Amino acid sequence: MPGFSHLYIPGPTNLPEAVRRAMNVPMEDMRAPDFPDLTRPVFEKAQKVFRNSEGRVFIYPSSGTGAWEAAIQNTLSPGDKVLMSRFGQFSNLWVDMAQRMGLDVDVIDCEWGEGVPVDQYAERLKADKTHDYKAVFATHNETATGVTSDIKGVREALDAAGHPALLMVDGVSSVGSIEFDQDAWGVDCAVSGSQKGFMLPAGLGILSVSKWALEAHKTAEFPRCYFSFEDQIRMNDTGYFPYTPATQLLRGLDVSCDMLLDEGLENVWARHRRLASGVRAAVEAWGLTLCAARPELWSDTVSAIVVPDDRDARDVIAAAYAKYDTSLGSGLANVAGKVFRIGHLGWLNEGMVCTALSAAEMAMIECGFEIEAGSGVGAAIRLFATSDAPQMKIAAE
Amino acid sequence: MPGFSHLYIPGPTNLPEAVRRAMNVPMEDMRAPDFPDLTRPVFEKAQKVFRNSEGRVFIYPSSGTGAWEAAIQNTLSPGDKVLMSRFGQFSNLWVDMAQRMGLDVDVIDCEWGEGVPVDQYAERLKADKTHDYKAVFATHNETATGVTSDIKGVREALDAAGHPALLMVDGVSSVGSIEFDQDAWGVDCAVSGSQKGFMLPAGLGILSVSKWALEAHKTAEFPRCYFSFEDQIRMNDTGYFPYTPATQLLRGLDVSCDMLLDEGLENVWARHRRLASGVRAAVEAWGLTLCAARPELWSDTVSAIVVPDDRDARDVIAAAYAKYDTSLGSGLANVAGKVFRIGHLGWLNEGMVCTALSAAEMAMIECGFEIEAGSGVGAAIRLFATSDAPQMKIAAE
Amino acid sequence: MPGFSHLYIPGPTNLPEAVRRAMNVPMEDMRAPDFPDLTRPVFEKAQKVFRNSEGRVFIYPSSGTGAWEAAIQNTLSPGDKVLMSRFGQFSNLWVDMAQRMGLDVDVIDCEWGEGVPVDQYAERLKADKTHDYKAVFATHNETATGVTSDIKGVREALDAAGHPALLMVDGVSSVGSIEFDQDAWGVDCAVSGSQKGFMLPAGLGILSVSKWALEAHKTAEFPRCYFSFEDQIRMNDTGYFPYTPATQLLRGLDVSCDMLLDEGLENVWARHRRLASGVRAAVEAWGLTLCAARPELWSDTVSAIVVPDDRDARDVIAAAYAKYDTSLGSGLANVAGKVFRIGHLGWLNEGMVCTALSAAEMAMIECGFEIEAGSGVGAAIRLFATSDAPQMKIAAE
Amino acid sequence: MPGFSHLYIPGPTNLPEAVRRAMNVPMEDMRAPDFPDLTRPVFEKAQKVFRNSEGRVFIYPSSGTGAWEAAIQNTLSPGDKVLMSRFGQFSNLWVDMAQRMGLDVDVIDCEWGEGVPVDQYAERLKADKTHDYKAVFATHNETATGVTSDIKGVREALDAAGHPALLMVDGVSSVGSIEFDQDAWGVDCAVSGSQKGFMLPAGLGILSVSKWALEAHKTAEFPRCYFSFEDQIRMNDTGYFPYTPATQLLRGLDVSCDMLLDEGLENVWARHRRLASGVRAAVEAWGLTLCAARPELWSDTVSAIVVPDDRDARDVIAAAYAKYDTSLGSGLANVAGKVFRIGHLGWLNEGMVCTALSAAEMAMIECGFEIEAGSGVGAAIRLFATSDAPQMKIAAE
Repeated sequence: MPGFSHLYIPGPTNLPEAVRRAMNVPMEDMRAPDFPDLTRPVFEKAQKVFRNSEGRVFIYPSSGTGAWEAAIQNTLSPGDKVLMSRFGQFSNLWVDMAQRMGLDVDVIDCEWGEGVPVDQYAERLKADKTHDYKAVFATHNETATGVTSDIKGVREALDAAGHPALLMVDGVSSVGSIEFDQDAWGVDCAVSGSQKGFMLPAGLGILSVSKWALEAHKTAEFPRCYFSFEDQIRMNDTGYFPYTPATQLLRGLDVSCDMLLDEGLENVWARHRRLASGVRAAVEAWGLTLCAARPELWSDTVSAIVVPDDRDARDVIAAAYAKYDTSLGSGLANVAGKVFRIGHLGWLNEGMVCTALSAAEMAMIECGFEIEAGSGVGAAIRLFATSDAPQMKIAAE
Repeated sequence: MPGFSHLYIPGPTNLPEAVRRAMNVPMEDMRAPDFPDLTRPVFEKAQKVFRNSEGRVFIYPSSGTGAWEAAIQNTLSPGDKVLMSRFGQFSNLWVDMAQRMGLDVDVIDCEWGEGVPVDQYAERLKADKTHDYKAVFATHNETATGVTSDIKGVREALDAAGHPALLMVDGVSSVGSIEFDQDAWGVDCAVSGSQKGFMLPAGLGILSVSKWALEAHKTAEFPRCYFSFEDQIRMNDTGYFPYTPATQLLRGLDVSCDMLLDEGLENVWARHRRLASGVRAAVEAWGLTLCAARPELWSDTVSAIVVPDDRDARDVIAAAYAKYDTSLGSGLANVAGKVFRIGHLGWLNEGMVCTALSAAEMAMIECGFEIEAGSGVGAAIRLFATSDAPQMKIAAE
Repeated sequence: MPGFSHLYIPGPTNLPEAVRRAMNVPMEDMRAPDFPDLTRPVFEKAQKVFRNSEGRVFIYPSSGTGAWEAAIQNTLSPGDKVLMSRFGQFSNLWVDMAQRMGLDVDVIDCEWGEGVPVDQYAERLKADKTHDYKAVFATHNETATGVTSDIKGVREALDAAGHPALLMVDGVSSVGSIEFDQDAWGVDCAVSGSQKGFMLPAGLGILSVSKWALEAHKTAEFPRCYFSFEDQIRMNDTGYFPYTPATQLLRGLDVSCDMLLDEGLENVWARHRRLASGVRAAVEAWGLTLCAARPELWSDTVSAIVVPDDRDARDVIAAAYAKYDTSLGSGLANVAGKVFRIGHLGWLNEGMVCTALSAAEMAMIECGFEIEAGSGVGAAIRLFATSDAPQMKIAAE
Repeated sequence: MPGFSHLYIPGPTNLPEAVRRAMNVPMEDMRAPDFPDLTRPVFEKAQKVFRNSEGRVFIYPSSGTGAWEAAIQNTLSPGDKVLMSRFGQFSNLWVDMAQRMGLDVDVIDCEWGEGVPVDQYAERLKADKTHDYKAVFATHNETATGVTSDIKGVREALDAAGHPALLMVDGVSSVGSIEFDQDAWGVDCAVSGSQKGFMLPAGLGILSVSKWALEAHKTAEFPRCYFSFEDQIRMNDTGYFPYTPATQLLRGLDVSCDMLLDEGLENVWARHRRLASGVRAAVEAWGLTLCAARPELWSDTVSAIVVPDDRDARDVIAAAYAKYDTSLGSGLANVAGKVFRIGHLGWLNEGMVCTALSAAEMAMIECGFEIEAGSGVGAAIRLFATSDAPQMKIAAE
């Protein structure tokens, strides 16, 4: 099909040109004496993106799912009791992994569209006088429903209970895009991947851990090798890796971290807020609603948009792809057919948001939705053209 | 600035990914025995894009301006009388070149916004019983004003007068995008460049000539060397070039011609018609007008949009660039400040048109234009979503 | 430093231009309806490279080490008894992994420079009447010492003993370069990675399994999720993946498999034999020896070259890198300082081998080695220029 | 064919990775307000590469041949008398151009292998009391024969005669590679192209002119437009171009000039001297000779190697290409079949020279040349490994 493909799924995100160029390299010698000149700054900069000043970052050739597994294998032991919650496909998959790995998972099920049930966490932690919970898991940004949860609240619940459990956070679709503060929130394992806020192709699992996680690692008894901290630490400390790293992606990560830090994390977050507000203004103008239950749960990286009951969101996605070469995110599992998603994270600006909204409008109109052409994108245009660039307010406030 | 840059000027146009990849090559040996395996098909395919079945194509390392000069140097002699018309910056520059080269130019000046004055051409050709005019020049698509002229009409005027003058056509911003038929229209020199319909970076002047132009070349007396047909012909006939060719661009041209021919020229033209109609629907919705004087002059590759008298179009262009990383075309010379231009040619689809329109709307709103947010892009969305894909009618008809 | 960097380590190997171009793509939607148009052929072609007609291939975002772990996790259970051998750093690391994963490893230690002790394997398998061994592991090509082992022999030993143990083979530095025949040799798990014979950047673990391995998987009890066959199978069967795949590398793999299959696997193997023979002719001319104990163990993908006792191979490697921008492979663990390695696999031709040999010569001369300038590269040149291109004989035979 | 292609022709030269990356860009707006941020430094840096402190540089979308024509058109008038010499295909072609353009050319023909006949120039200039010669032309580096001429000597001849003629120099295959000093040598028009020392693809003609050339331009009467200084100057002074520039190549030029200036021009020249010395050592070891008549004429950018009378150099070139994917330069015109050429300029290091020499050796051996395998490349290796890196002496001195 003629013209650029338009990619507005919640990851992989669009590659910045500078990143794309940085990765277009011949292969290189990962045992060269000057290889650490690449790797050391990459580790340092990645840590800054997580706001992790006292721990360390692991970079695996894997997806974010691999980093989930790495977090579990390296800090916990088979049979450990953990507290988790489930309110979307990704929080669901993490629970599934924990169960299959042999953890004793205490799951709180919530409606899809809700976030981490901080109050219930607080109760159970308070009740756990014997500190049976070894870890508390929280999905910061549930990509399937477009819900951002209150990680700071989870930390406060732990602290209020004086509970030593590790705090494990899935930040795959939040880190590098929306506010994330590993130090301030006391996150012990923060999981991310290359293909979202880090604006790279998929292929790196990025795991940022606190010093407490490193301490826990010493007694963690899962069998492990590929993802083992010990092998990584031994080699990373010298600037190398225990096995062949994905050097091409490291070249890209070097540049994308620079871009994030040069823009300034607060500015990156504000930009995502602003662009997300445009999307939400469009949704409102279309007369549709978000899957996220309440404004304070709205995600600034992805919006899951609920279609009317008599419509199938899959038709919208199919039309956008087939006729307008535009990829929107599909509804997964429980919300299949009920929502389509617009990913609005990473290398993104106003024009791109308008492209996504225009394609969504055209697709909805083709599917017979009764929406006025230009209503959604017009609402975004109005917001963008009349608000100062970085605005930290949620549109609906 | 974060996010992709948006390029909606009337050339250079956006690079197709396949073209971009094809050009990302190490340097190669332009005297290798298999080099003609690249060049022969490129010449053949380029000829097909012009619909030139009996002549040949020259490919120079130059811009389109170089191909203008090549056409003159190789088919005419100093002092030759030629008929030209001037109704925009590019037709104006071609007149300027012809005069500086030493041709005796009979210029018809028209309002900017008009096209080639076919009737006046017909009269003068009819009156020229002694066949003093050696060539008639016509700018097919005046990029400065967004005007497409009637080349077929010019040919008919020549034929009606039984006039042997060469027909020289500037097709820089038309060939490969909108209807162009060198055979049917009897075009003797059709000038183009790589960076418009051919969807490549600037750097190639592409000149497609008829057998009559080749005949005229035999007696053409301009001093020439770099652009000389004779050197090109001698080497091109063997699959090589008289000096180092821009092999990287030839690699790209090979792919871009394939893309045009695979899509089918009629489909390419219909796509441009459809996308241009979307832009024009937006202009109408904004309450603005086109520089092109009448619907039959509307260009399907570029729209020059007239701003209200109390506005400066340069402010719109500046705002689009500074705030939305979007390049719109500026008004040149006589129409500086009076128009901004949206290039809608080359590697383009509906989503991209909506991006351009959205950015233009945002910029106009920022500049205080009284337009309703979403009105223009909404009009385009409506047209795109409710019309069958390739439609050959002009929107206003 | 000016000029191209020269990479002659045994992986990552040099990227073919076509692969490099194929990977220079914008991100894409891994849930698009036409995504299987990419993935299905990739799986099929990868299977052909392994000569695996009845099983299936798994492609993980990981390194080859990850595929090692995947093979163990998916086909064995904690405490299973396995037979392994150790004669170089990579066979050593696989043993280490097996032990750490909790297998009961019966290790046969051999001199570094030897290969899989087929006779001892045969004996132990014959003696294992109760079929305690659940799997037999063999490193096909020990990258650290440049030794190729007799996998066919191991299969014969299993068959002679009527032993049902799985045959697990590390083919990371052999598959796609030298003879490998999963069907004929009855290999149950063949481990490879993207950055050797597959001529891609590191980042994919590629595991090709037999139907027997898939059968064994049903009762394998290791906890697993990231590398689990079950998740992969369920999604791969639909053309998709259980988590975000490394699409960029899949694009490259699509092309590199085409290249291998178009060249013809036998021709690829013959080319590696021929090029390796040139390296070995150089080694002989230098008066040096290979780490590999006997000609029948010589690897056609990597040569570990033993330096005189009074020399440190690390100096050669350092000089080649610092002065000639050439990466040679270092001696690992037991052979650190004793050998330097020349990787001669993947996207390679005679000119590149001469480059590697020239750089090695220059480095050795700079380090005071008493070798005649041009002796080694001259021996290779003689062999290349006077032997027919694909020759299947070992030079010394 | 597997493995990298090896390009050792005297241009196009091998692309540095950084340049290749810099050119892999989307198209951009050549009228953007920040476009001069790219162009101004490019002009400045290009001027430094020529060592032109008081004049200016013109950058045309063209080949070097275009810059030849630009130099003539802009500084001379039809019928002007000029002094030229001819001793190879490129000096020959420049004479041909001058004659076809209508200059009154006084040509001194020399043996191919000789350089500019400085003594004869001196005589004729001295004899030209009426200053009929308007310009003196000199080919600094005759690419066809591998001869570097004494431009400083030509300047001295002009000065000794007190002659005001312009000094026009073809530096296509010298500038950016070997010593060139426009200021010190009083060169008025220095012609170059992108695809040699500037290490870019072909596509830019680069013309560096003195203030005297700019003065001469005021009265130069050739018809011109595409290459006219006046249009360029008017636009270049604002940071723009009179027609669409080859922005992709400008991006590359920006980087390649940085690379040359960062390495330091003297170091670049010394590197070329060193690498050329290696080639010459090989030629001597092969028992062959250079086309260049004397050591002081030896070019450090290209060696034209004479084959024995009973051999045809075309066979060597064909064998190198067909069997070893190596491009060597062919003998042109008078020396066709008598020489093959090795280009050793641009992005080059020792390993690459050894590659070229190895391929040449293999090809010669295949063609039945009686040379010892390894003799030539061995001589180069010896020189490289035993001489300090940058050495400014000619090997034979």
